[in-house]
Amino acid sequence: MASLSNLYRDEPGSESRFGVDYVIHYKIPPTERAEAEAAFVQLIQALSDVGFSTEVRPGKTDSLLVFAKIASDRHLHAQVYRYRIQDWLYGVRSSAPNKDLEQYLRDEPVSEAERLRLTYLLITKPKAEGGAGITPQTGRWKYVDAVFPLHDHAFNKAWIKRWSTKSALDEADLAEIRDRFGEKVAFYFAFLQSYSTFLLFPAAFGLGAWLLLGQFSWFYALVNCLWSVVFFEHWKLKEADLAVQWGVRGVSKIQLPRPQFVADGEKQDPVTGETVKVYSPFKRLARQLLQVPFALVCVLILGGLIASCFAIEIFLSEIYDGPFKQYLTLLPTVLLTVLIPVLSSFLTGLATRLTHLENYETQDAHAAAFVQKVFVLNFITSYLPIFLTAFVYVPFGKMLVPYLDVFQLTAQRFTAEGKSIPTKEFEINPDRLTKQVIYFTVTAQIVNFFLEAVLPIVKRKATSVVQDVHTEMKTQKGGPSGLTDDPDEAAFLNRVRQEAELEDYDVTIDYREMVVQFGYLALFSVVWPLTGCSFLVNNWIEARSDAVKIAMSSKRPIPWRADSIGPWLNCLGFLSWLGSITSAALVFLFRDGRHGPDGSPSGIRSWALLLSILFAEHAYLVVQRVVHYVLGKLDRPGLQKERAERFSMRKRLLEEAQGQELARKEVTGPGLSGGEKQITREMLEEEARRESIHGHGSPEERFWERQRGAADTIEIGRQLISELAAKQNTTKQ
Amino acid sequence: MASLSNLYRDEPGSESRFGVDYVIHYKIPPTERAEAEAAFVQLIQALSDVGFSTEVRPGKTDSLLVFAKIASDRHLHAQVYRYRIQDWLYGVRSSAPNKDLEQYLRDEPVSEAERLRLTYLLITKPKAEGGAGITPQTGRWKYVDAVFPLHDHAFNKAWIKRWSTKSALDEADLAEIRDRFGEKVAFYFAFLQSYSTFLLFPAAFGLGAWLLLGQFSWFYALVNCLWSVVFFEHWKLKEADLAVQWGVRGVSKIQLPRPQFVADGEKQDPVTGETVKVYSPFKRLARQLLQVPFALVCVLILGGLIASCFAIEIFLSEIYDGPFKQYLTLLPTVLLTVLIPVLSSFLTGLATRLTHLENYETQDAHAAAFVQKVFVLNFITSYLPIFLTAFVYVPFGKMLVPYLDVFQLTAQRFTAEGKSIPTKEFEINPDRLTKQVIYFTVTAQIVNFFLEAVLPIVKRKATSVVQDVHTEMKTQKGGPSGLTDDPDEAAFLNRVRQEAELEDYDVTIDYREMVVQFGYLALFSVVWPLTGCSFLVNNWIEARSDAVKIAMSSKRPIPWRADSIGPWLNCLGFLSWLGSITSAALVFLFRDGRHGPDGSPSGIRSWALLLSILFAEHAYLVVQRVVHYVLGKLDRPGLQKERAERFSMRKRLLEEAQGQELARKEVTGPGLSGGEKQITREMLEEEARRESIHGHGSPEERFWERQRGAADTIEIGRQLISELAAKQNTTKQ
Repeated sequence: MASLSNLYRDEPGSESRFGVDYVIHYKIPPTERAEAEAAFVQLIQALSDVGFSTEVRPGKTDSLLVFAKIASDRHLHAQVYRYRIQDWLYGVRSSAPNKDLEQYLRDEPVSEAERLRLTYLLITKPKAEGGAGITPQTGRWKYVDAVFPLHDHAFNKAWIKRWSTKSALDEADLAEIRDRFGEKVAFYFAFLQSYSTFLLFPAAFGLGAWLLLGQFSWFYALVNCLWSVVFFEHWKLKEADLAVQWGVRGVSKIQLPRPQFVADGEKQDPVTGETVKVYSPFKRLARQLLQVPFALVCVLILGGLIASCFAIEIFLSEIYDGPFKQYLTLLPTVLLTVLIPVLSSFLTGLATRLTHLENYETQDAHAAAFVQKVFVLNFITSYLPIFLTAFVYVPFGKMLVPYLDVFQLTAQRFTAEGKSIPTKEFEINPDRLTKQVIYFTVTAQIVNFFLEAVLPIVKRKATSVVQDVHTEMKTQKGGPSGLTDDPDEAAFLNRVRQEAELEDYDVTIDYREMVVQFGYLALFSVVWPLTGCSFLVNNWIEARSDAVKIAMSSKRPIPWRADSIGPWLNCLGFLSWLGSITSAALVFLFRDGRHGPDGSPSGIRSWALLLSILFAEHAYLVVQRVVHYVLGKLDRPGLQKERAERFSMRKRLLEEAQGQELARKEVTGPGLSGGEKQITREMLEEEARRESIHGHGSPEERFWERQRGAADTIEIGRQLISELAAKQNTTKQ
Repeated sequence: MASLSNLYRDEPGSESRFGVDYVIHYKIPPTERAEAEAAFVQLIQALSDVGFSTEVRPGKTDSLLVFAKIASDRHLHAQVYRYRIQDWLYGVRSSAPNKDLEQYLRDEPVSEAERLRLTYLLITKPKAEGGAGITPQTGRWKYVDAVFPLHDHAFNKAWIKRWSTKSALDEADLAEIRDRFGEKVAFYFAFLQSYSTFLLFPAAFGLGAWLLLGQFSWFYALVNCLWSVVFFEHWKLKEADLAVQWGVRGVSKIQLPRPQFVADGEKQDPVTGETVKVYSPFKRLARQLLQVPFALVCVLILGGLIASCFAIEIFLSEIYDGPFKQYLTLLPTVLLTVLIPVLSSFLTGLATRLTHLENYETQDAHAAAFVQKVFVLNFITSYLPIFLTAFVYVPFGKMLVPYLDVFQLTAQRFTAEGKSIPTKEFEINPDRLTKQVIYFTVTAQIVNFFLEAVLPIVKRKATSVVQDVHTEMKTQKGGPSGLTDDPDEAAFLNRVRQEAELEDYDVTIDYREMVVQFGYLALFSVVWPLTGCSFLVNNWIEARSDAVKIAMSSKRPIPWRADSIGPWLNCLGFLSWLGSITSAALVFLFRDGRHGPDGSPSGIRSWALLLSILFAEHAYLVVQRVVHYVLGKLDRPGLQKERAERFSMRKRLLEEAQGQELARKEVTGPGLSGGEKQITREMLEEEARRESIHGHGSPEERFWERQRGAADTIEIGRQLISELAAKQNTTKQ
């Protein structure tokens, strides 16, 4: 990380952000200059209409940089106040903001994340709701390439420097991330942290198991499943807890509308009486059903590819015995590495289209639906190969291999005068499964790290170097777009131009990575108990490289809020549940040593296999309930905080009401007199009069007048009791 | 129901309740008269201390009847106000009660149920919380036999009369029940109603299936499972919905403390700062683990009994062929009918003790824990016999029968000179399963009905007749306990004395019945599709007989509140899930006609069986999620109501805050001037001065001062664009 400083190319001034809230990167395609210019005017007007100060500067070739800063603090504060009220109404905040704004903001100051979030909303939300309604890259704003805040270099550097020395993230670190990049990002790091901490156990235990129990130990499988349950249930609670501590519990209730949402009609909301744009849930349901064929397509395409490459590989590596074997065996790997990315990017595109088709009102719903589909894709690409080896190749290999002759025949076509190809007797390769798991849990992780973290930085350095040359060439004829920058802005503008070039940071990608990793641990680590160790190391680096990614290789993210890791939670649950099944199956198949059934299913008592699966699964379900119950019993700081807030709120309200109530209360003072009917002269007279008029009041009245007050009742009661006694004695004799 | 009037033996006056809120039945054991008398005095004092008027009258032999009525309406209103505030604080009510009490109570009058609930709380809750702290039959109040409200005969009669003619309960009926007997009872009837309505489908479909598909049809099984899922998920929503409509959503949060709770220490609540009595959750957890051995004991005892009776029966009915066969075959049935009740009452006692041991703080938690255990018991007694037939007798009969020779040998002992017993060749009886299911789903239900509904009434009539004679004898020497009743009270006192004799009504018993019934439908109806019809009829009667039970054969229940059917929900879920497994298994075993495997497991491909179970179960889980999702999409009156309330609340609060906010807002009026930095003479001078002092302000200031206001920005932007264009043209050439 020593190279940080020159990554940021710290010329004086590049540190400062010149108080800019958001930079708008505005493209001007040479062909459509007129439209672009018109739209530009609108842009500036829209911005200033909602109270932004603006500055414009030349961007890189064919683009402008518009700098926006909220004009007056009071305007910002009004926003803050308004949104905090909303939070309170939705039950996110337990107390309403204090009317005295100045005092209030001194008590609960505005974090940078909050400021940026609100200003972003001010820029993007529709005019109707008092925003500028600027939606990057869509509709009339198609020239607006991006709206992004500027990195805080000083902070980023300090942050990464600290981490590179620190072993784990503590509350303070998370709080910092939260204040800078918002809860959504903070939740990712919180998850990563507590997942990595939990990894310590499977790492240690896995090492022990590897040394003492070897592979495919039922005991390891058991403990591993148990661990995954505990982790899952723990996180569910931890998540809720963090949400409360960060004061974002229930923010998912406050939904951001999707600008792309298309209503199929308006109806008057029976509740609010407002006319709202609606989309029939049944139409959506119908479209959601498309997920089924989508999943099938994925299985067919990806599954087909993987399976066939798998077959070819087996043929070449374990049957074929001719020339160029060592080169040919690489063929399937090459095929996969080339085709998988192509196909999955195609399918991801399909998923995106499908999700758009489902046409959700809110951004969260949209994101969740998309994640579902992405998860299906990743499930296939990540786990299918191992599934094939474990549950097809190993048990049925010998049966299936004969069908691989097709390759032989096709191969013969190409060989001269179709002489048959030299082959060797097929033998199941018992190490294949282990090798594969190791590949996915170690090699793949490392490769991935390079692709994700190192490559971009290298790229960036290279380009930046090129650009330096470029700009120098230019600066003779002045400025990137032929205009000289003011000397004391140059450095600043340079860095902005650079940041404008970076991609957006997408947290879902990082989540996906972690979830898939968890999957390997839950599903297959029984094959190779060291998995945990590998992941532990990987994640230590992962946390840092992700930080670097956010800080240096991507635009600063918009600091959105979140109250959970969202749809990924279900994925975790699903994987940990599936783990109970696969582990059981693997343990059963390979119960006599790592060789397992030698490619012929005859050896396997399928009913026993199914029984063990059935058993394992239900054991899992029971254990999960128990763990859930037990963990639920523990008290947690966040929940405590919430209880405290609710309590104080109740107390306050009750005190307001109390006064009254006491007033009511004292009308029936305690003491024996309490229940007594006040016998006043009037009453007696009244009674007398009633008698004189009609007999003696109603039976009910008389019933209640027989004993005047408690004292009477006690007296009479005593008499009755003694009479009872008397009667008993008489009956005795 | 024509006999109603004389069931209530309507002498004039027995209709009226003399405005009594609660009757306290006070026992005076001859031996402990002194203590009883002392306690009596305390009782009356305690009552009058919290504002009750009291009257005392002789009860039946050796008992007093204390009549309590809340002394002043204002005192009652204070209570109402206080508890409604509490509801509001806990989010049960969305709006705080209006300060003007009179007006408020005119808007939201006090229902009879509410009045009775609050007065009961006033009597029973501890002195510390402002109650009289009277806990019947425990501690110093051990002479207080019962504290019960009086039935409203007029209402009850009308109620039952209406029902006996009506086909189904509508909202109005439920609302009435709710106002009289509280939500807890109302929820039972609501559940019964919607369950019965849902039964129409399996009844009709079952009939069709029975006619067309016969028994063990996979299609019936499929539809039946689907139905049970839909019903379960529907009820979950319906329940929440009712809770909202009845304004009790979340009352389960307001917990009633258990007087029997024993704390193992005090700790200061970190939240409220109060010292609260606590009981370590881990101790409790440890004790809860006792449920496992408890379940095992139940299985062993009951299971053992059932299994052995089952074996004997088979031996006698299908092997033994000697004398007295027809009588002997009754033996096992006799054994069961005698022993099962004994054993299960013993085990229920055990369950009660266990639950007390678990020592819960709140009544709900206690009840829930108890229900769990009861469910285990009922599960065994109700379903085990069928399980044995279906999954032991039918598939393994032939294998197991040889072991039944033990009976033969033992029998030989007793027969003269041990000559062997005449036996016949064992043949699986294919009708046994069907017969058994029919027995449990028809015969048992009818028997149960008589035991539960008819018998008590008959008993009651008999006793009441006897008592009449008794009392007449007595009245010569005056009154039941040797004292004459005032003539215009006599009738009233008589009825009170009668009601004092009745048992308490326990809704859990009725729930248990329905849940067990649902179980038969979900688990075994594939054996005999007519099950649905039988239940439909049964429930029509059940609803009425339950009503009669509440109205006439039990004390009026304390009208507690509830926001769901509580722990029974889980039982339903469990049964409907288990149903998917059993149905699949049954269909598989009996797929070739109702004879199924003829007692020898050889015929069964166990892996296929397991596979079909595995498949069915997971299909079930998927379907459940889908149904849950789909039903969740539908809008419901209750939820709508809630949304409406929340909305109006938000609106009100927002309006309060709004004024302010607008004030804030206008400081940044819209229009181009909006973002503009006000350029005043002062500013210019200031600027000039700065220049003269030190160069030209900070780079940041200068950055933002280059373009004064949006108009400037636009201007400069335009220039830049055109320059861009110029550059492009030059580069083109």
